[in-house]
Amino acid sequence: MRDAYHEELDSISDGLIEMARLVGSAMGRATTALLDADLALAESVIAADDKVNSLHHDLENRAIDLLARQQPVATDLRIVVTSLRMSADLERCGDLARHVAKVARLRFPDTAVPNDLHPIVLEMGQLAQRLVAKAGLVIATKDVDKALELEQDDDAIDALHRELFSHLLDDRWQHGIETAVDVTLVGRYYERFADHAVSVAKRVVFLVTGEHIGDFLATNEPAALGE
Amino acid sequence: MRDAYHEELDSISDGLIEMARLVGSAMGRATTALLDADLALAESVIAADDKVNSLHHDLENRAIDLLARQQPVATDLRIVVTSLRMSADLERCGDLARHVAKVARLRFPDTAVPNDLHPIVLEMGQLAQRLVAKAGLVIATKDVDKALELEQDDDAIDALHRELFSHLLDDRWQHGIETAVDVTLVGRYYERFADHAVSVAKRVVFLVTGEHIGDFLATNEPAALGE
Repeated sequence: MRDAYHEELDSISDGLIEMARLVGSAMGRATTALLDADLALAESVIAADDKVNSLHHDLENRAIDLLARQQPVATDLRIVVTSLRMSADLERCGDLARHVAKVARLRFPDTAVPNDLHPIVLEMGQLAQRLVAKAGLVIATKDVDKALELEQDDDAIDALHRELFSHLLDDRWQHGIETAVDVTLVGRYYERFADHAVSVAKRVVFLVTGEHIGDFLATNEPAALGE
Repeated sequence: MRDAYHEELDSISDGLIEMARLVGSAMGRATTALLDADLALAESVIAADDKVNSLHHDLENRAIDLLARQQPVATDLRIVVTSLRMSADLERCGDLARHVAKVARLRFPDTAVPNDLHPIVLEMGQLAQRLVAKAGLVIATKDVDKALELEQDDDAIDALHRELFSHLLDDRWQHGIETAVDVTLVGRYYERFADHAVSVAKRVVFLVTGEHIGDFLATNEPAALGE
């Protein structure tokens, strides 16, 4: 029974790693679609989110079956419950990539993001993609040092988010309100995506070390709003 | 053992109901703080979120202890796992009320929301508060009809959200970019708050009826962005 248990646990872990891979790819492609006003790419990101949702539901059901059949306790129980939470985090990352793609689709054939903000948004997109790739690696390797790197990457995203807001709130902003609204929402999507990736890594750290590094998602705020 | 189990389950349910009460009150007060530019009230909402976070952590630990000690299966297991998710939804509602209060604090002594938008924002705030109050009632009573009401209330919030965006995107908008950014974010906070309240109610419906009413949170988008 214990072997079956660990096989099933490995397969849940593999599912999480696959979800991290899919949502990282989705956010990378969503960012390209946004900056290039690529409608077909945006549509493909939107459609592909179904796969993430279905992995999430599948994984939830398998985790609950595992709890029912194997009735793990102590650390084993925490691993399964934590997997449920990581799956929810990664599913939400998929939603946020889809939100970015939908902004691209809504403004097509225009680009939602003005040219002078392309470098910032590109960097936010790349960092977001790297963050979730690292989160996937952390799930696979349980590498605590790698997990701690995510906090620095997240600080870099927050800095970019502040920079985005400083452009928005600059008196010389000349792109109008609609674009300001789009950029505000897109910035928020990247920030939340990064929060969820960091949350995944922190959950692994907690499992490995037993140390809780604060309730990250509960204390994070939009960079421009006074944090 | 079964009696201890059901007592513990009731106490988890009571914790969720208390969280719903607290975050509903927080969102009501955050809305007042936002519209009245009431700094003291905003600060009290921000400080009070600690209580919600601590209830959430306490509830998570008790749910995991319950899994370990009682090893429930089938429906009982689903109830405990669903409680973990509802607790996460309600904790996030608390964050969103705090986000609204932080916008109020950031713009003090000004009001972040222009006078002509006060009625819409007030109604969004009131509806959000009612939604989570109903979600608390649904947890307590398992009333499926009441749970289904939340979807209509959420449609009403979405309609208000669209109305907010139509003001933002009107050529006659005269409140500048900073206010547009604030209103965009505040609108998003109310909408996400409502999503989480609906999610809580849907989880109860699923437990009672075994029927899944779609992956609500996965398909919901900002009203202004093409839905």
